[in-house]
Amino acid sequence: MARARWGEPPGGFCDFSANINPLGPPAGAVAAAQAALAGIAHYPEPFARRLRAALARRHQVDESMVLVGNGAAEVLYLLLRLASGFRVALPEPGFAEYARAARAAGAELLPVAHDRTDPPPQLGRGDWWIICNPHNPTGHLFTPEQLLRAAERTEATLLIDEAFIDLTAAGEAGSVIARVPHRCNLVVVRSLTKFFALPGLRVGYAVAPRWMVAELDAARDPWSVNSLAQAAALAALSDEAYAARTRHWVAVERAYLAEQLASLPGFIVYPPSANFVLVRAPLPAHEIQRRLGPRGVLIRDCRSFAGLTEHHMRLAVRTRPENRRLIALLRSILEEEAP
Amino acid sequence: MARARWGEPPGGFCDFSANINPLGPPAGAVAAAQAALAGIAHYPEPFARRLRAALARRHQVDESMVLVGNGAAEVLYLLLRLASGFRVALPEPGFAEYARAARAAGAELLPVAHDRTDPPPQLGRGDWWIICNPHNPTGHLFTPEQLLRAAERTEATLLIDEAFIDLTAAGEAGSVIARVPHRCNLVVVRSLTKFFALPGLRVGYAVAPRWMVAELDAARDPWSVNSLAQAAALAALSDEAYAARTRHWVAVERAYLAEQLASLPGFIVYPPSANFVLVRAPLPAHEIQRRLGPRGVLIRDCRSFAGLTEHHMRLAVRTRPENRRLIALLRSILEEEAP
Repeated sequence: MARARWGEPPGGFCDFSANINPLGPPAGAVAAAQAALAGIAHYPEPFARRLRAALARRHQVDESMVLVGNGAAEVLYLLLRLASGFRVALPEPGFAEYARAARAAGAELLPVAHDRTDPPPQLGRGDWWIICNPHNPTGHLFTPEQLLRAAERTEATLLIDEAFIDLTAAGEAGSVIARVPHRCNLVVVRSLTKFFALPGLRVGYAVAPRWMVAELDAARDPWSVNSLAQAAALAALSDEAYAARTRHWVAVERAYLAEQLASLPGFIVYPPSANFVLVRAPLPAHEIQRRLGPRGVLIRDCRSFAGLTEHHMRLAVRTRPENRRLIALLRSILEEEAP
Repeated sequence: MARARWGEPPGGFCDFSANINPLGPPAGAVAAAQAALAGIAHYPEPFARRLRAALARRHQVDESMVLVGNGAAEVLYLLLRLASGFRVALPEPGFAEYARAARAAGAELLPVAHDRTDPPPQLGRGDWWIICNPHNPTGHLFTPEQLLRAAERTEATLLIDEAFIDLTAAGEAGSVIARVPHRCNLVVVRSLTKFFALPGLRVGYAVAPRWMVAELDAARDPWSVNSLAQAAALAALSDEAYAARTRHWVAVERAYLAEQLASLPGFIVYPPSANFVLVRAPLPAHEIQRRLGPRGVLIRDCRSFAGLTEHHMRLAVRTRPENRRLIALLRSILEEEAP
């Protein structure tokens, strides 16, 4: 799409359109994937057992509650199979894969406000309600208490997509993952690829009630996470220094980018909570992209999100020099526009 | 399982239980995966577009008929979704994933003889019939004419699993893949991981009617094949020298291994056609494995296959020194047994 329209610049695009940690993957994860190359003539460990055990330890839940998949996307597609013939309430605006996965499962789609906390009355036992926390693309952050209360007040299964929770200020303290073993209708989906900058490798997981994991594992491709992805994920999880560096970077740069964007004339900034900022710009996002593209900068035009307009765009938080460059370019575009 | 029971020997197990090319992955494929490591902070190409184009050119079919997946297993699970609510005829004995995938789709299972060529009369439009050619584990080889006649004589969709066809003497000439565009009820599934010794990376594909590919692509995780697997597969497909070396090795060693096995007292050898040999041994396979395991040799006990007995085992064709070692070990086990 945008990448193909403008030739890739020599140093690669400065990509504000994808919410990936700009520090790049942990060196140990790359080294682990490289070492695993020697073993590609063997099948991957079925059901990613060692990785599953490491994730269970990390969250202090039983292994039988962990479903590891080829990216959070596979995990989402697997879980929503259980919604076949039921209703799935999806946040609007929201990640397009929710609707695709629900449709693939043959579920009935029920769009609801993305920041809703009172259970939709149309939902009953067997139905699902997806909440994205923090929400992509608005940045809306729910408290664990809000989510647990929502789970208590519905018979539907509440699926919390926490793909970006480890990039928020509270981090794990803002997660409801530790509550999953205590509720029969709570499922949490996590990604390892945003925080650890490994989207090319595909690793995600869910913590879910035991019966769900057992039922889905019994009916899935057991080798969906390849050997290199398993090795890299295991190494990434143990790199505490990288995690600390990332938390420091995101706290500082999120504040900087949001403040700078808010200083641009006509920009409305949605309070960010993770590593991206939703803004409403005085020009259409595609106009802004048209001017940034030839300069090697990509942004996420949000007009395809239901409920957002062509003036909405999402900007990933990147490194200070990149964030500064983006702000300077946006400022010059606005000045060219001014009468 | 077997691997865990006996400690892994220093040089690794001599593994006759997995049907993987013992020449190891093409050097170019490993180099391509290694080079792709530099790009893991980017998402994989959705739907593996370049790889899909390369496969379409290879088989001279339109790209819209190629479904690329995370191993032949993912492709199988995707295709059988279309059998939801219908019947699926599966070969017995046969690969356990057929039944798992059909069950996952909520299809009704209908086991049929693995070498059957007349359509089961219970099948009608919407139903599926899986044939494995060459058949794993028996080695039974169908001619393209037999399969095309079978497809003409049924309204069901005929799914031909050609995971091992490129390891047979006829190779592509024995495939029905070129006929898929000319029939509305023919689907061919292929693996890249057996021939190219890349099972750790997971790449497989199907050539199928356009509507099936469109329907399944519209309702699946678009990033299921990771960046490294895409890069390695593309490189592997272009390595003609490796392909020639593999064809020469398998022709020579298949004949050698089968002949040697047939010379062992009490062994019944099923005529092999790919890179594995099914045998009926005078001792139970688990007895043989119990004696080979401590010597670092693994075999496939086939008692879990419906229709086979505890005396059946499957042996992968490996290199001459390994094949020779296996025969010597089997001979010594038989001599220990003799009164």
